[in-house]
Amino acid sequence: MAMRKGEATREAVIGLALSRAAEVGLNGVTLGVLAGKARLSKSGLFAHFRSKEALQLAVLEEAIRRFGEAVVTPALARPRGEPRLAALFRNYLAWIRGNKGGTGCIFQSLSEEYDDRPGPVRDRLVRALSEWRAALARATAQAVEEGHFRAGVEPDQLVGHLVGIAKVYQESYKLLADPGAQDRALRAFERLLAEARAAPARRRR
Amino acid sequence: MAMRKGEATREAVIGLALSRAAEVGLNGVTLGVLAGKARLSKSGLFAHFRSKEALQLAVLEEAIRRFGEAVVTPALARPRGEPRLAALFRNYLAWIRGNKGGTGCIFQSLSEEYDDRPGPVRDRLVRALSEWRAALARATAQAVEEGHFRAGVEPDQLVGHLVGIAKVYQESYKLLADPGAQDRALRAFERLLAEARAAPARRRR
Repeated sequence: MAMRKGEATREAVIGLALSRAAEVGLNGVTLGVLAGKARLSKSGLFAHFRSKEALQLAVLEEAIRRFGEAVVTPALARPRGEPRLAALFRNYLAWIRGNKGGTGCIFQSLSEEYDDRPGPVRDRLVRALSEWRAALARATAQAVEEGHFRAGVEPDQLVGHLVGIAKVYQESYKLLADPGAQDRALRAFERLLAEARAAPARRRR
Repeated sequence: MAMRKGEATREAVIGLALSRAAEVGLNGVTLGVLAGKARLSKSGLFAHFRSKEALQLAVLEEAIRRFGEAVVTPALARPRGEPRLAALFRNYLAWIRGNKGGTGCIFQSLSEEYDDRPGPVRDRLVRALSEWRAALARATAQAVEEGHFRAGVEPDQLVGHLVGIAKVYQESYKLLADPGAQDRALRAFERLLAEARAAPARRRR
């Protein structure tokens, strides 16, 4: 029972830290501010996370778990190939819009925050981003196998464009507050699919 | 003479702050650390910048000035249309690679850092990024006028792809340390140009 309460506190702290990190960066989450928000003493907080780095890694793991749950898992229920790729991409745009408060994609923020900060947090982030790109590349390769896309489509190249559209969407939507951001992202995605499609589907354009 | 010395100190402080901001973010540049690096007292630093925000704005202006000098101005010397657009893009990739120490594009970092921080720094950043996108859109529109690109090419759409390629390049190069990053960015750009070109040039593909 005490264990369960400890776990609940731990989870609450991670959730608070994640919201805060989306705003001020993961390195900007100070244990003092966090303890205050969680109504814990600093030493109480240390009982759950032995260091700031341990907390940062736990927050990153939680973000990765939520991303898997919101973006990847529902897409895996869709048929292999273009339907799955489209679901991954659309779920990702929804993730950027942020169901609960418009915080944007935290991985994009962390990518900028950690590119000059070597260490375990950066290593874990690199692995997560590489896995995300690999998941998109796999869905693209399957779209070629299934005959949805032309044989000449290079997964890495197409994934580069997809990730780029999503990054521009985040900047246009969040920083520039551009009302046309989502429409442009979806149209860019549609054009990319149209270009990648096998000949019969392409003529539909 | 005293004025000139004051200006030189001010410039040196801005340069130091800019390097530091590229690593830890503009908000992570503390006046204390900066004063130490510049061999000034904190009150000496305050003689040059009345507030942390004034310093941040001065650093941002300096980054904008350097960007203009390295990326925009040399491209304006190239012929209107595709040559100018290509120069803008190639100069931008070179800016991301960083001639002096590989710090990446500071505007991409600031875009993530400031999207949740309202205020004058964010406002100035929004204006700078909007102007950069507008410069790319202008060069694209001119490429249509000059007959380099098809009449159907939408500048905003093409600019979205360009900015996306550059963002993916920065992440692939800096965070993921991907040796193929530059080659992929250049190939993505070439494909974009090939798609945009007017019919005769397009058949060359």
